[in-house]
Amino acid sequence: MDSSTTTSVNTAATRPPSAVVADLFGPILPALRRVEDRLQSELTSSDPLVDEVVRHGYRLGGKRLRPALVLLVGNAVGELTSAHELLGVVVEMIHTATLVHDDVLDEAQLRRHVDTVNARWGNEKSVLLGDFLFSQAFYLAATVDRDAATACQLIGRTTNRVCHGELRQTLAEGDLGLSQADYFDIIDGKTAELCACCCRLGAVYAGASSEVADAMESYGRNLGMAFQIADDLLDLTGDEATTGKTTGADLAKQKMTLPLIYTRDSLVNGPRLALEEWLKDPSSKSRAEVAKLVEAVGGFAFAQKTAIEYANRAVADLAVLEESELKHSLATLAFFASRRDA
Amino acid sequence: MDSSTTTSVNTAATRPPSAVVADLFGPILPALRRVEDRLQSELTSSDPLVDEVVRHGYRLGGKRLRPALVLLVGNAVGELTSAHELLGVVVEMIHTATLVHDDVLDEAQLRRHVDTVNARWGNEKSVLLGDFLFSQAFYLAATVDRDAATACQLIGRTTNRVCHGELRQTLAEGDLGLSQADYFDIIDGKTAELCACCCRLGAVYAGASSEVADAMESYGRNLGMAFQIADDLLDLTGDEATTGKTTGADLAKQKMTLPLIYTRDSLVNGPRLALEEWLKDPSSKSRAEVAKLVEAVGGFAFAQKTAIEYANRAVADLAVLEESELKHSLATLAFFASRRDA
Repeated sequence: MDSSTTTSVNTAATRPPSAVVADLFGPILPALRRVEDRLQSELTSSDPLVDEVVRHGYRLGGKRLRPALVLLVGNAVGELTSAHELLGVVVEMIHTATLVHDDVLDEAQLRRHVDTVNARWGNEKSVLLGDFLFSQAFYLAATVDRDAATACQLIGRTTNRVCHGELRQTLAEGDLGLSQADYFDIIDGKTAELCACCCRLGAVYAGASSEVADAMESYGRNLGMAFQIADDLLDLTGDEATTGKTTGADLAKQKMTLPLIYTRDSLVNGPRLALEEWLKDPSSKSRAEVAKLVEAVGGFAFAQKTAIEYANRAVADLAVLEESELKHSLATLAFFASRRDA
Repeated sequence: MDSSTTTSVNTAATRPPSAVVADLFGPILPALRRVEDRLQSELTSSDPLVDEVVRHGYRLGGKRLRPALVLLVGNAVGELTSAHELLGVVVEMIHTATLVHDDVLDEAQLRRHVDTVNARWGNEKSVLLGDFLFSQAFYLAATVDRDAATACQLIGRTTNRVCHGELRQTLAEGDLGLSQADYFDIIDGKTAELCACCCRLGAVYAGASSEVADAMESYGRNLGMAFQIADDLLDLTGDEATTGKTTGADLAKQKMTLPLIYTRDSLVNGPRLALEEWLKDPSSKSRAEVAKLVEAVGGFAFAQKTAIEYANRAVADLAVLEESELKHSLATLAFFASRRDA
């Protein structure tokens, strides 16, 4: 699933898929390559200064998980068409736009071993590049050759929920009392929603029944939940050299993620107060203390278990599909999403 | 055209139109009020923290020039439908989204006598609020009951050009050698494009021929050029108490606007070097010196004359329409756009 983090950014367009990815994505690889080519050709500008910024946006892309979901689900359900490829380009652009804006919010300096746009050009250009990507995505969605209104509605509603989730999360920063339910709700909006949309698009544009489309949307949502929980875990346990992004950002922003919420709810009295003090005053020392406490209480294990539970639910959603190599790939992908080390 | 700047923000939703606006907008006032109501009802959230930010976005709105263009052109060309009202909501949301993001870029503190979002909540919330507005606009555009793909394509392409123009402008900041041609190109993208789109939408959804739709698009573009030139003039000559926004921002950001470009191109040797020194080192003293020089050379008069020329072209574009009260309103509006004192 992840070949990008060990690959030089300059070869992103031609990066060879790892053996695992080739296995999983086998039947859709040619389509995925066409998505890649189209992404690269769309992200250009006749103005040389703008061109440089826009191209950088392309290089920030990574696993192409979202286009892969559109294509895999489409192919598992029925026949792939050019609409699937175009929609794959659209969802990846939307994802990249949210990444570029996230990096402004997180003041992150690194993403996939590459300088973030705000680290290189400042917040202004990041805001505008994100807007450019969003609007280009919406424009392309409206040019899909079949039932463009459906695509635009699904994508518009999803993007709206994503932004709402991000806004909620940002406003919740520093709220050390954030509940588990609110956490799940926030990651549902900011991550799972777009994965769900990818899978529904893949299904709908392959002529799926509404029952199958609903099941695929649910698969995408559960996979997205698993993915985000694993990602949040990585922010606490990963190191920058392996993950290629700034870690510890959640702690620095007092963003409560699942391991922290579980740990907080497992403690009372003195230890709980100590945890809250460390969370309120982020430093490398307090980060180490928090990690020790989360480990001891079982917070990391709980989050990992929860991610795997979501992956199990995603696999259960696949029951509506006939057995096939592609169905197997979708199941494997859900487990990859829940267990990440980069 | 402008009743908002003298009205308390709390009464924005019910603000009474001034006599001039009532005259100009007479036939479309009921539709404009429905646009206003819909805008207000769309910009809410079930989450109380998010709701506060989103509602603030609504209050930043001002003249509702863009929905008025959709409705006036629609009514001048044919019959207004519910599609026009929905599209009016969409274009105003897109405009507000760009304002919110502009204020991040300009580090502006005031807009229409109200704190900007970034002054009140910081850049993070501004970025996310703008994204929320963009995505809500795109979602709504996709729900228009007739030929949604056309609306989505027109709006997507326009928004894309707007973002491209903004990106170009930001990257050109500090370029004291910006040519007149590049300046016109930039404001065409960042302002005139959306006005042109409003007028094309109004015409297309009233069943206009392609000749009339093209003429209306051209009208909107020329009006938008006049409007932006006048707006840039105001940034140099206006005061905050009257305009309700932070002025002098262009000078502070070394953004070359028409009066400055004209003045630069009218000077050689010592005076030109002096101007460039003042532009490179913005302060209240250098601002006064620049204004004196621009006034003496005729830079303000040149910009005002150019704005009026664009208004004249906009009026000429109206020749394809039958004589009517609405055609007269459109002509008057073009001249209002070119002569602004707030």
